[in-house]
Amino acid sequence: MPVWFWLVPIASVMALGAAYYFFSVMMKESEGTETMARIALHVRNGAIAYLKQQYKVVGIVLASLTALFCVLAYVFHVQNPWVPFAFLTGGLFSGLAGFIGMRTATYASARTANAARHSLNKGLNVAFRSGAVMGLTVVGLGLLDIAIWFFVLTSFYDIEESQQVVVITTTMLTFGMGAAVQSLFARVGGGIFTKAADVGADLVGKIEAGIPEDDPRNPATIADNVGDNVGDVAGMGADLYESYVGVILASAALGAAAYYTSGTDVQLLAVIAPMVIGALGALLSVVGVFFVRTKEGATQKDLLGSLGRGVNGSGVLIAVLSLALLWAMGVPNMWGIWLALVIGLLTGIAIGQAAEYFTSESYKPTKTIASASKTGPATVIIAGIGSGMLSVAVPVIAVVLGTSLAYFFGSGFVYSTDTMNLGLYGIGMAAVGMLSTLGITLATDAYGPIADNAGGNAEMSGLPPEVRQRTDALDSLGNTTAATGKGFAIGSAALTGMALLASYIEEVKIGISHVLERGSDFIFPDGTSLAAGAIDELQSLNLMEMMTYFEVVLINPKVIVSMFTGAMLAFAFSGITMNAVGRAAGQMVDEVRRQFREIPGIMSGETDPDYARCVSISTKAAQREMMMPAILALAAPVIIGLIFGVPGVLGLLIGAMVTGFSLSMFQANSGGAWDNAKKYIEQGNHGGKGSEAHKAAVIGDTVGDPFKDTSGPGLNILVKLMSMESIVIAGVTVAVHLV
Amino acid sequence: MPVWFWLVPIASVMALGAAYYFFSVMMKESEGTETMARIALHVRNGAIAYLKQQYKVVGIVLASLTALFCVLAYVFHVQNPWVPFAFLTGGLFSGLAGFIGMRTATYASARTANAARHSLNKGLNVAFRSGAVMGLTVVGLGLLDIAIWFFVLTSFYDIEESQQVVVITTTMLTFGMGAAVQSLFARVGGGIFTKAADVGADLVGKIEAGIPEDDPRNPATIADNVGDNVGDVAGMGADLYESYVGVILASAALGAAAYYTSGTDVQLLAVIAPMVIGALGALLSVVGVFFVRTKEGATQKDLLGSLGRGVNGSGVLIAVLSLALLWAMGVPNMWGIWLALVIGLLTGIAIGQAAEYFTSESYKPTKTIASASKTGPATVIIAGIGSGMLSVAVPVIAVVLGTSLAYFFGSGFVYSTDTMNLGLYGIGMAAVGMLSTLGITLATDAYGPIADNAGGNAEMSGLPPEVRQRTDALDSLGNTTAATGKGFAIGSAALTGMALLASYIEEVKIGISHVLERGSDFIFPDGTSLAAGAIDELQSLNLMEMMTYFEVVLINPKVIVSMFTGAMLAFAFSGITMNAVGRAAGQMVDEVRRQFREIPGIMSGETDPDYARCVSISTKAAQREMMMPAILALAAPVIIGLIFGVPGVLGLLIGAMVTGFSLSMFQANSGGAWDNAKKYIEQGNHGGKGSEAHKAAVIGDTVGDPFKDTSGPGLNILVKLMSMESIVIAGVTVAVHLV
Repeated sequence: MPVWFWLVPIASVMALGAAYYFFSVMMKESEGTETMARIALHVRNGAIAYLKQQYKVVGIVLASLTALFCVLAYVFHVQNPWVPFAFLTGGLFSGLAGFIGMRTATYASARTANAARHSLNKGLNVAFRSGAVMGLTVVGLGLLDIAIWFFVLTSFYDIEESQQVVVITTTMLTFGMGAAVQSLFARVGGGIFTKAADVGADLVGKIEAGIPEDDPRNPATIADNVGDNVGDVAGMGADLYESYVGVILASAALGAAAYYTSGTDVQLLAVIAPMVIGALGALLSVVGVFFVRTKEGATQKDLLGSLGRGVNGSGVLIAVLSLALLWAMGVPNMWGIWLALVIGLLTGIAIGQAAEYFTSESYKPTKTIASASKTGPATVIIAGIGSGMLSVAVPVIAVVLGTSLAYFFGSGFVYSTDTMNLGLYGIGMAAVGMLSTLGITLATDAYGPIADNAGGNAEMSGLPPEVRQRTDALDSLGNTTAATGKGFAIGSAALTGMALLASYIEEVKIGISHVLERGSDFIFPDGTSLAAGAIDELQSLNLMEMMTYFEVVLINPKVIVSMFTGAMLAFAFSGITMNAVGRAAGQMVDEVRRQFREIPGIMSGETDPDYARCVSISTKAAQREMMMPAILALAAPVIIGLIFGVPGVLGLLIGAMVTGFSLSMFQANSGGAWDNAKKYIEQGNHGGKGSEAHKAAVIGDTVGDPFKDTSGPGLNILVKLMSMESIVIAGVTVAVHLV
Repeated sequence: MPVWFWLVPIASVMALGAAYYFFSVMMKESEGTETMARIALHVRNGAIAYLKQQYKVVGIVLASLTALFCVLAYVFHVQNPWVPFAFLTGGLFSGLAGFIGMRTATYASARTANAARHSLNKGLNVAFRSGAVMGLTVVGLGLLDIAIWFFVLTSFYDIEESQQVVVITTTMLTFGMGAAVQSLFARVGGGIFTKAADVGADLVGKIEAGIPEDDPRNPATIADNVGDNVGDVAGMGADLYESYVGVILASAALGAAAYYTSGTDVQLLAVIAPMVIGALGALLSVVGVFFVRTKEGATQKDLLGSLGRGVNGSGVLIAVLSLALLWAMGVPNMWGIWLALVIGLLTGIAIGQAAEYFTSESYKPTKTIASASKTGPATVIIAGIGSGMLSVAVPVIAVVLGTSLAYFFGSGFVYSTDTMNLGLYGIGMAAVGMLSTLGITLATDAYGPIADNAGGNAEMSGLPPEVRQRTDALDSLGNTTAATGKGFAIGSAALTGMALLASYIEEVKIGISHVLERGSDFIFPDGTSLAAGAIDELQSLNLMEMMTYFEVVLINPKVIVSMFTGAMLAFAFSGITMNAVGRAAGQMVDEVRRQFREIPGIMSGETDPDYARCVSISTKAAQREMMMPAILALAAPVIIGLIFGVPGVLGLLIGAMVTGFSLSMFQANSGGAWDNAKKYIEQGNHGGKGSEAHKAAVIGDTVGDPFKDTSGPGLNILVKLMSMESIVIAGVTVAVHLV
């Protein structure tokens, strides 16, 4: 094991230590008045109640799948024996990351509100460092999981040495699937919960009853605040945990394949390079957190500037220090890999900037949407959809350029398919670069819902208006950082998706090698055959040959119809989750109306509404509505794999990936723009609050809610889960098609 | 030339003759009162004024492209010498089909309204037979164009006999590009025109001024009625002209390639089979028109039944008679090809049925959307988008099954890539089957806007309410048939798209053969090389070999990034056209408000509003807003081809195709469902007309307008135009990448 590897557990422990430090500092702050503490407790209890229920369901799913993998591994021998355990830890760690982040956020909201009573800077500090707890927990746990498994497998997995590194890295990839299952429930279930509550609360409260947002008389308001925590914090944590480990492990697997013939030493360097870069990024993220501070009386621009200092500071540091690190390690093709890393960082920034341009009220697109509100809700919706659909152009071009350049750099400054493994490794390293500073970018992301909840707490506790103004400033900033964060998440998913295709082929090879070892010949669809035991011949096949033998060419009807299916799945998944939010919001509306009608004294403030009932409605709806999307995501690769084999699976994945990227970008940007168009009007433009234009903009914002926080992010998970699952069941797909 | 070929010109003449007959019968009807005739004249003049302007713009584009192709063909010799002329006739005939259809429709509206004064049956007869004029004109002109060119080229194109049929059929394909350019302007430009007028008229008239639809006091109402004619009639005619000839010619080209080694006789049979089936379908469509009649006092169900008799009657007849025809011709693999034809018909019906289920107020999805209107516009929009996105599942599954089966039947009852050309020919024949009865399905489609305009005419002329009731019954039926018709159009585009990929490869081969003939070697990207003059070796390469030599495999980054680009283009194109409608509608709203404000006596009915000004605003907006989408569609294949070569072009086309299919299906179905949800409420449900629920549903309908009539259908054209263009410039793409 190269000595550099030990940087990974060290960085993991330091990130987790820093997270714990920020957590305990935050806990020492006061929760403020008794009312403030009571409201925070309501929200905390609601969030825990939801999470308990969700973990119960996920637990059943994880346990069933683990059992299934055990059967496949130990009874039918078509599955790697370590997969069930790797799968399980991925699921557990991902859930843990979400849980810790959410727990922190629910403790932080009242404390942020209380700190904002003193000063803006103090509010920013509490909120941001609480967000940093989640960011550092995600990267810390991710690196820990990777470090432990890599150490265990290299030490105890008894396998022929020439094969060892390839098999180990692809085996480790399978804990991505556990994380993906967890994040499906966390992100999509949480998304349904939060938007059902949000939409329901807005429709009755703001529009019908005419009471402001977060008014304590609204029975759904606690559920709405709970939702921010379970969807935007816990869900996002689980989601990005999966992206983070997925990116690092996919690159490691690509490194193993790319440098297969260069000897174990070089190969190991290429394998641990993404892990070590991740470790470096984790350390620099801790440093970056300390860059974030602001002065009292800071403008919105100052605030954005101070967050930017943290994120950009870490980015610049990693760009510089990673070169030194790669040089010190003696990684092959050092300049190429470093350039790929930097390209990844730049691509992420370009995507983030584009998201900001298309969603911030400082720029033309959102201003146009706001101005369309003068002619009513219909034109607001048309303008928002039009702008969102158009907005996908920039991130796609960024990904196209970034991928092409990373491939070019990674393959040693040529653009040829002869060096395809090297080029794909370059793409993987670009994704690693993009996510290397996740610790701090995620902090800026998780900070948003904390500030949002602090505002809710301030409103419900009747704190003086200047406190609400301060939390609003923090919250509004959070909208912009959230759009940027989503850009990073979607962008990295695209790059990782491409890298995972190569890992899928590696896994298919391992599946074939099991067949050959068991003494059967293997015949490819195009007629090429491998004799029993011809492992060396199999290993010598490069990616292009594998693709040719499996006839994964664009004219093969199996490929094309599966691509149609993949694209369709992206739309159907979005449609199902949109409908789920619509249905659950409808139930919430009915319940709120019922409480207004049946519980006397709510509107006068004499009686508390039944908050818990609303939380429970959202909880049940989220779990119930999760079943269809979960089944769809889990079943599709199996069914397509059984019918159309390897070409079908690859077609499905790519179809879902290219369509899902544009579809989720469109939804994220439309939703963000509607939200900010509403805020722009609330600042007094086009008639300001209460005008017809404002009402139209509120409708746009309500439509945008499930777009940006349920369906849009859900697509990412769909694509990642299907990729991971395909890798896990590759052996089965190959074995079945022999019969 | 096999004698069966002569069926094609005969059927063409008979279809055109029948169209002329129906037209002259319609013209003998009275236009009713003087007011009715005057209003019809307003609409007709507006439509002609628009079309003049549009043809001017298209003329410039067609002329420039023709000049460019001449330079490529005669100066640089990288283009087939017949292409410029084929391109031009395609454009002219497509425009002519749209023009005749629209001209007929504008004459028919007052006559339909007048006939509806007498009886429902008479109204149906006039409207439907006027629709049939367009249906039969499209197929008649299509078959004529095909017959003339095929005759001319086989007689006068001097080329080595073994090559002749392949080169001729792929050359003919290029007039599809002319038709596609024409239809881009007709369908998308017309779509922007009509929806800008429609949305603008609704927003000010219905929502602000509180006057009913088609009220003569609304200045935009004539523009709205003009729009129905230029968008829904002329646009659709040009669009489907392109689909029709595209389908037949793509199948002919596939037949030439598939039976290349079977001798010229068999090859020619396979080539003319799709033409002859088209001819048979044209004749049966004429027969089908006479099946359509209804009795007085007919219910909505009776009406649907009588249209169904026409469409289904023709469908059953073609299913039976095509078997006899194929047998009599002695076409190879007769049973397989016949089954593929029938599968195509069934796939079309399945897609149509799914569209009906997801858009008709008789079924649950639309009822759910209507019921969501009780909680306001936001939930209506969420429910409509959710349902529309989910609705893509059925048509995609139908296409996946239909394609797979057609491939299986076409390749002689195996599912293997060894017989890929045969299988693709099967897919092509399935598309021919789906569109074979276009004469009558298009009649049911074009009839909708005629009935809609008749209703407008009745309203504006102040005819008694029972007339409007009758035209409403006809119009509402038209909404359902329109959804079915769109299903056919989108479904056939998907199947043709796949077939065109093979034609693209054939065209690439021709490009390579030019290179070899000029004495250069040709080296494929994977290193395989062909020596100068090795034409026979080139011809012996099958599709799979071409794809592997060009490395068009799913893992090639050139392929993947181009697929991302293709998917993005579908979204960007939709976004641009949505924004275009939004902007143009905004201008219309301003103009209508200005007229209400500045022209006294409009609201009291004393003064006529300035209708012409509104028509002119829509016309200008449509032309201006067309530039961006047109440039995008025309530039993308060139740019991608120059940068990434053949793998890039194929990736681009497939990415746009799979994403475009789902995206346009979603938009068509969401739009249709919103429209009918509004109608359902107007029937008295959820509070009926004027209720809050109705207002919410009107907003949904307004959003749906550009969905279903601009962006959705536009995507089809985008995909078809890019495919056709790629085929036309294949030689250039190949030649450039040599340098």
